[in-house]
Amino acid sequence: MSAASAGGAGTGVGTGTPLPVPPGLVEAFWAYEKALMSNDVDALDRLFAPGEATLRGDADGLLVGHDQIAAFRSGRGGAPQRRIVQTHVQVTDDHHALVVAVTELARGGRGQQTQLWALTPGGWKVTAAHVSVPAPALDTRVWRVVGDPLVPGSATGGPLTGETVAVKDLFAVAGHVVGAGNPAWEAAAPVERRDAEAVERLVEAGAAVKGITRTDEFAYSLAGTNHHYGTPPNPRVPRRVPGGSTSGSATAVSLGQATIGLGTDTGGSIRVPSAYQGLAGIRTTHGAVSVRGLLPLAPTFDTVGWLTRDVHRLRAVGDVLLPPDTGSGSSELVVVPGLLGLADPDVRAAVEAWLGDLGLVVREGWPLGELGAWLQAFQTWQAYEAWSVRGGWLADRMDTLGPDVRGRFEAASRISKADADVAWDTVQTARTRIRDLVGDRVLVLPSSSSTAPRPGAGLQATRDATMRLTCVAGLGGLPAVSLPLRTRSGTPCGVCLVAAPGRDRALLDLAASLAG
Amino acid sequence: MSAASAGGAGTGVGTGTPLPVPPGLVEAFWAYEKALMSNDVDALDRLFAPGEATLRGDADGLLVGHDQIAAFRSGRGGAPQRRIVQTHVQVTDDHHALVVAVTELARGGRGQQTQLWALTPGGWKVTAAHVSVPAPALDTRVWRVVGDPLVPGSATGGPLTGETVAVKDLFAVAGHVVGAGNPAWEAAAPVERRDAEAVERLVEAGAAVKGITRTDEFAYSLAGTNHHYGTPPNPRVPRRVPGGSTSGSATAVSLGQATIGLGTDTGGSIRVPSAYQGLAGIRTTHGAVSVRGLLPLAPTFDTVGWLTRDVHRLRAVGDVLLPPDTGSGSSELVVVPGLLGLADPDVRAAVEAWLGDLGLVVREGWPLGELGAWLQAFQTWQAYEAWSVRGGWLADRMDTLGPDVRGRFEAASRISKADADVAWDTVQTARTRIRDLVGDRVLVLPSSSSTAPRPGAGLQATRDATMRLTCVAGLGGLPAVSLPLRTRSGTPCGVCLVAAPGRDRALLDLAASLAG
Repeated sequence: MSAASAGGAGTGVGTGTPLPVPPGLVEAFWAYEKALMSNDVDALDRLFAPGEATLRGDADGLLVGHDQIAAFRSGRGGAPQRRIVQTHVQVTDDHHALVVAVTELARGGRGQQTQLWALTPGGWKVTAAHVSVPAPALDTRVWRVVGDPLVPGSATGGPLTGETVAVKDLFAVAGHVVGAGNPAWEAAAPVERRDAEAVERLVEAGAAVKGITRTDEFAYSLAGTNHHYGTPPNPRVPRRVPGGSTSGSATAVSLGQATIGLGTDTGGSIRVPSAYQGLAGIRTTHGAVSVRGLLPLAPTFDTVGWLTRDVHRLRAVGDVLLPPDTGSGSSELVVVPGLLGLADPDVRAAVEAWLGDLGLVVREGWPLGELGAWLQAFQTWQAYEAWSVRGGWLADRMDTLGPDVRGRFEAASRISKADADVAWDTVQTARTRIRDLVGDRVLVLPSSSSTAPRPGAGLQATRDATMRLTCVAGLGGLPAVSLPLRTRSGTPCGVCLVAAPGRDRALLDLAASLAG
Repeated sequence: MSAASAGGAGTGVGTGTPLPVPPGLVEAFWAYEKALMSNDVDALDRLFAPGEATLRGDADGLLVGHDQIAAFRSGRGGAPQRRIVQTHVQVTDDHHALVVAVTELARGGRGQQTQLWALTPGGWKVTAAHVSVPAPALDTRVWRVVGDPLVPGSATGGPLTGETVAVKDLFAVAGHVVGAGNPAWEAAAPVERRDAEAVERLVEAGAAVKGITRTDEFAYSLAGTNHHYGTPPNPRVPRRVPGGSTSGSATAVSLGQATIGLGTDTGGSIRVPSAYQGLAGIRTTHGAVSVRGLLPLAPTFDTVGWLTRDVHRLRAVGDVLLPPDTGSGSSELVVVPGLLGLADPDVRAAVEAWLGDLGLVVREGWPLGELGAWLQAFQTWQAYEAWSVRGGWLADRMDTLGPDVRGRFEAASRISKADADVAWDTVQTARTRIRDLVGDRVLVLPSSSSTAPRPGAGLQATRDATMRLTCVAGLGGLPAVSLPLRTRSGTPCGVCLVAAPGRDRALLDLAASLAG
């Protein structure tokens, strides 16, 4: 370490001539570097100061406290190999110094590491570290392909000129395959000759395609934790899932890498990532937007949707993609306490607070005794259809699926025609009943039962809890707009507005007016 | 700022109970933030400590000293808008504290800022700052399109399985246009139906196409400073040019974002970025590798080339792309002091040091009196051909070109047939003479006259000085391999091996054996 220390006459950096580098610091710095390169986790843990105030930040966010940092370290399998090409030391007193190092990574490119070291009774320890490494060419958790642009907007322009679209990897983009989040499917898929209808319409309206984004496998999840390509980050809630299956598009929009996230919503795949990431999103009336060029999951429930950072842009896209409204109705808002009660307290409180600001809202008790049976019918029929459309290809390729989605398809493969028929009847009954209950009004409910959960074992329970809410619009084939709210602690969640079929534009107008 | 400070009983962070946040620090922190958001450069300069030890690092590298930081600030036109969402303070003594802030950018995503503050006679000042912001979806200075992969390698695999190719935006990639570094050209270009021959061969051999990389406009530069898309970084020499025109491919390989950079070399466009970035590169014998699907610059001199981080990989690509050698010869190395003397002293010294390690090298005085005339003929004929192939399209679109390349094409448009004919004759004479001089041996000369220069006014002079060296292989139609060296200060430069036409494979074998 070249001791380019800068300090003051006895008072440290910034105030005069440099203080000498205190004894033991250089050795501690290199001991840390050696431990990092050999992934000696115990040594690394020892060289970071204990306690809740120790910090470590990188592109994935700031970790606070020794425990969080240790947990991160034990889970990552080592740091990228590198060498130190430059060091600078700023000594503040004989117990503290900042060490700034420029690194050159074995895989290419340069990074920087800034560490505050303190001499503790246990020796020199890092109390704060900030690490930067060169970004990859693209974040493959979020994107499969990305361009500047990938497809330009029409030369004549239109209402969406200047907008950029992140296209979920279920829609055809000419010149590319549809990957559907599964490497085996992607490897066998033909290059598409023509854009999907929704993509074509957006491009005609002047929007450019920025790229093709990751999805849960075959869109059969609400978590966004693709087994093969990793979990896209949730830029609003570090280390929580992004929500899926429109996960990549949602993260791309959150990160400002695209302005429109094009996706699908079968059982909540637009509404859930919207809620988890604080975005606006719409699931359209079933059948309102063409699914030409879209790989189906469960055609009875599949809809095209999109998400944006701003409800006015959400509406502008609707002006391009949506047919004229077929239904008319009121803007009367209806809240069903029994549905609100299905959400976690913090989410419920956020929706209640939002409702409180609105004023006139009708509160109505609905008979929800059958909701459990309706959800089951939804899931059974969804699974039965999913296996019908995908089982032929998947049957001898189940080992290409990640465990969660594989479990779902395996269960789907075992559904009998008889059970499916029963489910179908229940779906029809539920549809009629839900449409009657909503009538010509606008139902308000939480977009998801919780804020973004952690990755891991609890995701299946979260999915079931959220689908109890999202299946209402799914079963009804109804349009649903999710608007971003925040819980008291500032975490994103969503409120969902659901209307009669064919009232998509009215719903977007209402959402825009409510957002001000 | 929530004073989550952590310090010790009178001895600062890491050694006990937190010290209180010293008076004035919070105010200084927010004054800095306010100045940053309003781009109040004077206030920012005042809030950074004066002197040579002050540091500021971000993804583009570490700036050292107040002056460098101030120059950067005055040149960037402001920081991205953001809000502070979290702060942590670690106080080391009553004159020093580290402030770590998590930022949320208006354009999306979160970042981190780590600052060491010192209380100086002039008030609180930053002595070191480390800034991270979310990476863009792709670095548009380097890539136009990138994928995971963009085009998979052949399913059957081959000797290049596992390799990833960064394709210069002059080669056809099916499903994409050829952009040639010029937005107007790109907007009018047709979508390619078939990969260029070189791309096709690499994919057949198992390599995947990672993406399409930036080039100088129509490849008519050696700098890599594309006027429209910005200058790709030089990861090995921060704030110097990457070298061109195969600039994006070279940077992508340097960053480890691709393992093979496919490009072209007309007047040095592989050799120069190889030298500037410490890569291995080959310009092939004129005509040895098919140019089908390649947008020409000056067909008499255009050749396909590639660059890698390792000479063995350079050879492995040659095994795929090159025909069997047609010429035979010796491995005798010839050095011409008059050519060595055309390079800067540090580059010359690096080549001499390399030669010194080799042992047996023939030193030969060549009659170089005509070299100036040869270079002029090369540049004249190159320009004449460039205008012949591109003038028809460019004639009423000269305003779509950046100033440097425009100046070159404007000069090209004024070259008379008579002058071109004279140049052609000189080119023929030079070709014969150079081939005679090289004979069946291997000429050793610097790959470029200098290390990577700074962007700016001096680039034209650098280009002329370097072309005096690179035109030798260009005029001769000869294969040339550039190997990475370092100057005494550690800056990359290159040594170039030139052989008789058709000896590409022998040259790669020799280069590999010299590299050990």
